[in-house]
This record gives sequence, structure tokens and C-alpha cells, in this order.
Amino acid sequence: MISESQIIAALQKNFPSHIGDDAAIIDKNNDEKYIITKDLLVEDIHFRTTYVNPSNLAHKALQVNLSDLAAMGAKPEFVLLGISIPHHHEQYALKFLENFATCCKSANIILIGGDTTKSPDKIFISITAIGSAKFSHIKQRNSAKAQDWICVIGHLGFAHLGWLACEKALLNMDLYQKAFLQPQAKLAEGRWLASQAAVTSMMDLSDGLFLDLKRLCAASQVQGIIELTQLPPSPHFKLTCAHLQLHPQEIMLAGGEDYGLLFTLEPQSAKQILLNFKKTFGYEIQPIGYLAEGAGIFFHENGQNKKLKLQPFTHFGEKEYD
Amino acid sequence: MISESQIIAALQKNFPSHIGDDAAIIDKNNDEKYIITKDLLVEDIHFRTTYVNPSNLAHKALQVNLSDLAAMGAKPEFVLLGISIPHHHEQYALKFLENFATCCKSANIILIGGDTTKSPDKIFISITAIGSAKFSHIKQRNSAKAQDWICVIGHLGFAHLGWLACEKALLNMDLYQKAFLQPQAKLAEGRWLASQAAVTSMMDLSDGLFLDLKRLCAASQVQGIIELTQLPPSPHFKLTCAHLQLHPQEIMLAGGEDYGLLFTLEPQSAKQILLNFKKTFGYEIQPIGYLAEGAGIFFHENGQNKKLKLQPFTHFGEKEYD
Repeated sequence: MISESQIIAALQKNFPSHIGDDAAIIDKNNDEKYIITKDLLVEDIHFRTTYVNPSNLAHKALQVNLSDLAAMGAKPEFVLLGISIPHHHEQYALKFLENFATCCKSANIILIGGDTTKSPDKIFISITAIGSAKFSHIKQRNSAKAQDWICVIGHLGFAHLGWLACEKALLNMDLYQKAFLQPQAKLAEGRWLASQAAVTSMMDLSDGLFLDLKRLCAASQVQGIIELTQLPPSPHFKLTCAHLQLHPQEIMLAGGEDYGLLFTLEPQSAKQILLNFKKTFGYEIQPIGYLAEGAGIFFHENGQNKKLKLQPFTHFGEKEYD
Repeated sequence: MISESQIIAALQKNFPSHIGDDAAIIDKNNDEKYIITKDLLVEDIHFRTTYVNPSNLAHKALQVNLSDLAAMGAKPEFVLLGISIPHHHEQYALKFLENFATCCKSANIILIGGDTTKSPDKIFISITAIGSAKFSHIKQRNSAKAQDWICVIGHLGFAHLGWLACEKALLNMDLYQKAFLQPQAKLAEGRWLASQAAVTSMMDLSDGLFLDLKRLCAASQVQGIIELTQLPPSPHFKLTCAHLQLHPQEIMLAGGEDYGLLFTLEPQSAKQILLNFKKTFGYEIQPIGYLAEGAGIFFHENGQNKKLKLQPFTHFGEKEYD
């Protein structure tokens, strides 16, 4: 199977400096840039119509794209929607479109265009979202430094359990199903964090903390060290994982689609940022480790190195390009 | 089957003024706007891998989007590429990606981002192209007036014959196959026409002259009258149609994917524009009729009304949403 690195190599040969972040940056005016992101959602790769209703799909399709804008500290402004519709899903698609328009409107985002075509078999959705951000506030993934704290916001692993619950029709999993079906992009938090000079890099958590941190560290050319004691699963999460015979920390590290934010903080300002964030948003930033000179991701527990065998997040047995 | 009007209605309920042109317009700076377009290309709806090689597909995927920018008078600047790849087409997709990057580079367009995912079965391509245009030059489809001349540039019906040649493996059809497989967006012409105040509306020819003119007339609330005597098929085209038992003018009117430009001219300046265009580009604008008060599209031949039975352009038996 071809890897994303092969794909990026095919493109970067010609465009070395433009590919890599959650979203692209183009000029707007003297102070601001447009931030542009594009995400695809493919039936039976990213969702199933059997348990994702058109309203959930519309919500999620938008939020997944907004999460990329949140990671860059942008305010969403416009969206374009492309959809390919197979004959047997026309009513589903029409409901999706109505809901999508409503979701955009509720979020004060203007739907400015798109394309609709037939599809031979599966629903294929492509969204382009455009936001704007102060140039001086934009955070990327290549600017983290050794010694910075690694931090996250959002519930790690919840979406993965929700996905399992949907796939296996498990009962009493509403909390996790909601995280999977109705993620909320951390837009206000992203903009707040972007406005802090002490935030040295940021990206969203879409493919699981481990894989996403690996990308951030590679882009910034640093090593990531995760302190497992700082990743305590909640009692309920632990219990649920036990029932499902899953290792809770492995799910927190490898489960995808959380759509929280992963970012790094200058150590001297970190505590103040944590305090101010709590005051502003009423919940806490989780510091989960730190960066060092070098490369790769390592796990520590009580001062000891620890090996973890992580399965990259897979949907429906189809490995995502990583 | 749901129609595009149902789809547009579902979206326009919330966004009445933003949907309708070839591309969307957002602010850039005081003088300029960004023009943004999004087109989908779906395997076995818009192309077949059996006779469209990765290099042709890359060229066409880009040109189809650039044609929308040409229609708005924009200079292309950036592109985002989304692609979903089924396992059995990975090598094809990798070659497509390499070729696409090369096509962008040759056209001085920067590939700024995108998304790649797995696909269960078919290749899906979604391209977002961004150009910029002087605000005062942007042409839309809702500003044509009764009495304006209806004009086109580009070879009508060539791409349809090329598509037939590919589908049925017909010989000696290189001219038409090239029009189908390697269309060229009329970027320079689009920008030149956009700079002329006498051009009152413009759009690109993607779904066939008849359907596209119908949309332009509906947007401008005018009636279109096509003078069939002004649509003479070339001798070679006529002969080829005869061999294929096709009516040449019906193919010129209904054949899609020509990627020429359809525009309207103020009658008092029309002759001068035609002259200047010929001087600038070395070929001629075709005036094919005029607009009147009213609605709908009518055909005239030597002063008589004429009825034509037009089949909307279909790909692989799948009717496009119209």
C-alpha cells in the first residue's frame, strides 16, 4: 500500500514549503490571512449510513473541517461543499444537504458554493472551509522547541469507544457515541491559544494523539516524551475499556477522531497559561509530557521508559494513510 | 431522481445570494476578490481509468477547475487537492498525483494542501481552485440584458465526439479525443473578456451550450434565441457525425465538457469586441443568437422557429444533475 509519505513526496517535489499543516495559508490583507482546509468523508471509510444519520453526518462533516481551522487559530467564514450521490442514497443526501446548510448558518458560516454529481455506489463528501486569522497569531506544527510542554484539550479516546459502540451496537455508550457522532471543533479555545505567544505550535487531534504528536515532532524536528502518569483514564472510561477488554491508555493514545487540540507551551509561561485557560473556559488543559532534542516519541512512567504497542486507528478495517 | 434544483433549493433556503455562479467570490483587498471553485471528478461518472491515463486525468482535473475561474475572469493562484484511492488503483493514483503537481507548477499555480483517504472502490477527486480578479472585472451569469448578443468561443461538440470515440474505441478521432481528454481552460480569453465593459455576463461551457445557456438566461431572467444558421458545423465535424448517425447541431448544442466560454455582449459594442478579440487571439468569437424579454431558449432558422429534441449530455448512462 502507498503511504501518505509517498503521496506527500509526490507533491512536495514541486511544492516543498506549502504542504504540511492542518490548513493552508494565503494572503488576505495586511494583518490577516485566510486559512483554508479541505477534508474528505467517504461512505464506508469514514462513516456508515446505517448508524450515522444525515443530521449527524452534516454536523460532523462541518466540525471536522472547523477543527482544522481551530488548530490554526482561525475564525471560520466560508465553506464549499462537494457531494457525489449514488442513486440509492438520494433521500439521505438531500437530508444531509438541508442539515449541512442549517449547521453552517447556526455557526455563522456562509456556504458559498460547491459541486454535486452522481456517484456509482458510495457517498463521497468533500468540504473546503475558509477562515481568517491574524497573521501574528497563526500557529503551525513546525515551531515547537525542545523543553516545551506537550498539552492537549479534549477527551482522549472517547470517539474511538463511540465508534466501537456504533459498529458493534453496544448499549449504554451514549457519552462515547456522542463524542464520535457529534464532535465539536474547539474553535474558541483554538483562537484563545493562538493569541498566546507562549503557545509554540498547535494541531488538531484527528488521527490519535500518538500519530498526531509524531507528525508535530517530525515537523518541528524534536523528540516527544509522554508521561503516562499524566494520562490517567477516568474511572468510567477505565471501566468501559475493561468491559471491552481494551487497554485504556492505548485507546487514549491511538484512538482517532477526538478533534481536541494538541499544542506545545514554552515552559516558563506554561503554568500561567494553564491557569488562565481554566479561568476562561472552565476546564483544564492536560499537560502530558515534554519535548527534547532528538526524534521519535517515547513513553515514560514513574521515571522509567515504557514500551507500548499501539495499533493505529483504523476505520472498518481500512488503514488510513499515515 | 433528485434534481439540482432540489439540491440548490435545500441550500439556498439558508444562503439565497451566494450560490449560482461558476465560482464563489470572497474579499481579498480593496481592488481584488478571490474567486473560488470546487469540482468533483468521480471514476465511472466523469472518467474511466481504462482509457483516461493518469497524466490526462491530472491535466483535465486541473483544467476543468481553471475553466470556472476563466469564466469569472480570474487569474488562478492556488489549488487544493482531495483524493480517495481504492487499493487496486494506488499506482494509478500516485502517477496522477505526480502529474497533477507538475501541471500546477507548469501553470504557475501553487498546490497549498488537500486530503488523501482510502476509497472502498472508486477514485474520487475533489479540487478547489482559487484565483484572483479585479472586483470591477468579475463577470457573473445574472447580468445579461435583453438585446445582448449571445456569443461563444471554443469548439462546440468536439468533446462529446471525443468521449464517444473513447467509449466505443473508434479510430481516427484524435482531434475529438484530444478535446475530450486534454481540454484547455480559456484563461487568457476569460481575463480579456472580463476586462471589457461590454461583456455583460459570462460562464463556462461544461454541460453543453443548451443547458448552460438555459442557466444563464434563468439567472438573468431573459429569453435566449439561438440562430441555427450561425451554428454551422465544420465539414469534418459534419462528416464524422454522419458516420456516427448523429445530428451535428444537436451534438454542438447538447454535448458537454467543451470548456469554451459562453458570454453576452452589448449590441452597440459587439462588432468592435469581435474585431479586437480576433486581433488579440487570432481566432474568432462566434455570435450565435441574442437575448430577448421573456424566458426559455428558442431556436430560429432563416426567420422560422424550429423545434429541436435535445438529449442532455450523459456520461456512461448516468444523467448529470441539471
